[in-house]
Amino acid sequence: MSDVLKQLAQVLEARKGADPETSYVASLHARGLNKILEKVGEECTETLIAAKDAERDGKTDEVILETADLWFHTLVMLSRFDLGPDDILEELSRRFDLSGLEEKAARKP
Amino acid sequence: MSDVLKQLAQVLEARKGADPETSYVASLHARGLNKILEKVGEECTETLIAAKDAERDGKTDEVILETADLWFHTLVMLSRFDLGPDDILEELSRRFDLSGLEEKAARKP
Amino acid sequence: MSDVLKQLAQVLEARKGADPETSYVASLHARGLNKILEKVGEECTETLIAAKDAERDGKTDEVILETADLWFHTLVMLSRFDLGPDDILEELSRRFDLSGLEEKAARKP
Amino acid sequence: MSDVLKQLAQVLEARKGADPETSYVASLHARGLNKILEKVGEECTETLIAAKDAERDGKTDEVILETADLWFHTLVMLSRFDLGPDDILEELSRRFDLSGLEEKAARKP
Repeated sequence: MSDVLKQLAQVLEARKGADPETSYVASLHARGLNKILEKVGEECTETLIAAKDAERDGKTDEVILETADLWFHTLVMLSRFDLGPDDILEELSRRFDLSGLEEKAARKP
Repeated sequence: MSDVLKQLAQVLEARKGADPETSYVASLHARGLNKILEKVGEECTETLIAAKDAERDGKTDEVILETADLWFHTLVMLSRFDLGPDDILEELSRRFDLSGLEEKAARKP
Repeated sequence: MSDVLKQLAQVLEARKGADPETSYVASLHARGLNKILEKVGEECTETLIAAKDAERDGKTDEVILETADLWFHTLVMLSRFDLGPDDILEELSRRFDLSGLEEKAARKP
Repeated sequence: MSDVLKQLAQVLEARKGADPETSYVASLHARGLNKILEKVGEECTETLIAAKDAERDGKTDEVILETADLWFHTLVMLSRFDLGPDDILEELSRRFDLSGLEEKAARKP
C-alpha cells in the first residue's frame, strides 16, 4: 500500500502532457489552476457531507470515496506546482516526530 | 517516506484516548465530529488561498504547509470513524490501476 | 432594490413544487438537501477564487457573479427549512444594533 | 427589514478606517484579504454542518446564525473591493426577472 502515492504522483506527472480529450487530469490542467481548486473545494464539501451522513447512519463508504476524491485533487494541485506527496509526507513526518514526543509525554500519568 | 501515513495513523489512534488538556488530537475528539469537520473545511480554504498566492508569486511553502494541515485533519476525521489512510490508498489504488490502463491508451498516438 | 430578497424568497417558495424538468430550483429540491449544500460549498469556493483573482487584476465582475450564486443557493437552502432572508436580516439587524453602538464608541477618541 | 443590508453596508464602510483594537471589522481589514476569505470559508463550512444537523433534529437556530455569519463576512469581503449588497441584489434581480418568466412558463400545464 505504501507506494500508491508515489505511483499516483508519477501517473499525474505523466498526464500533465496528455491529451485533454482522453485524460481527465490533462483536461483539468488544460482548464487551469482555478478549475483544479474548484474541484478541491467541491470534494472537501462532499467529504464533510459524507461524514455527517456517516455520523447518522454508520455507513462510511461515502467517506472513503469522497476523501479519496479530495486527496486525488490535492495531488493534482500539488503536481501543478511541481510538488508531490513526498513534500506533504515530509512535513507531516517533521510534525509527527514532535508529536511523537508530545504523545509519549501525554501518556505519562 | 512510505510509512509516514501508517505511523501517523497509529499516533492518531493512540491519541483518541489521550488527555484533551495535553493532546491537540484528543481535544478535537473531545469537542466532537463537528469541530473536526470545521478544521477540515478551514484547512481546505487555507489551501486554496495558498495555491492562489503561489500562482502569483511562485512561493509554494504555504501550499505544502496548508495541504499537510488538510491531510492531517482528514486523517483525524477518518480515525473518528475507525478508518485510516489505507482505506483511502486502497481506493486510490483501485482507481489508479484503471487510470494506468487509460493513461497507456492515452499515450498512444 | 430593497424588495429583491423578499421577491426572490417568494419565487423560491413557489418553485419548491414546480416541475424539476423545467425549474432549476425544483431540480435541486428533487435531488435533496445534500445537492443544495454541495452547490453552496461550490459557490463559496468560486467566490474565494474570484476574490483572489480580483485582488490581482482589480476586476470585480466575477466577485459579484459568484457572491450572487452563493447567496442564491443559501436562499434555496433556507427555503428548504421553511426559513427565508428575513430570518437572516433579523439576526444581522440584532447584531447591527449592538455593532452600531460599538462603532460609535470606537470612533470616540 | 428591507434596509438592514444598506445600513450594514454603511457600518462596514465606516469601520474600514476604525481602530483594529476596538472594531472586529477593522481588525479583519488590518489582517488582510486572506483573513477575510478564511472567515468566509469557515462560516460556509459551519453553515453546511448546521444544515446537516437541522436535517437530523429539526432545529434551525444554528442554520440562521451561521448563514448570518456567512452573509456578514461576504459583505466585509465586498466592501474590501468597494462593492456592496446592492451589487449582489442587482445581479439577483436581473436573474430573478428571467427566472420569473421561466417560473411562469413552468407553471403552465
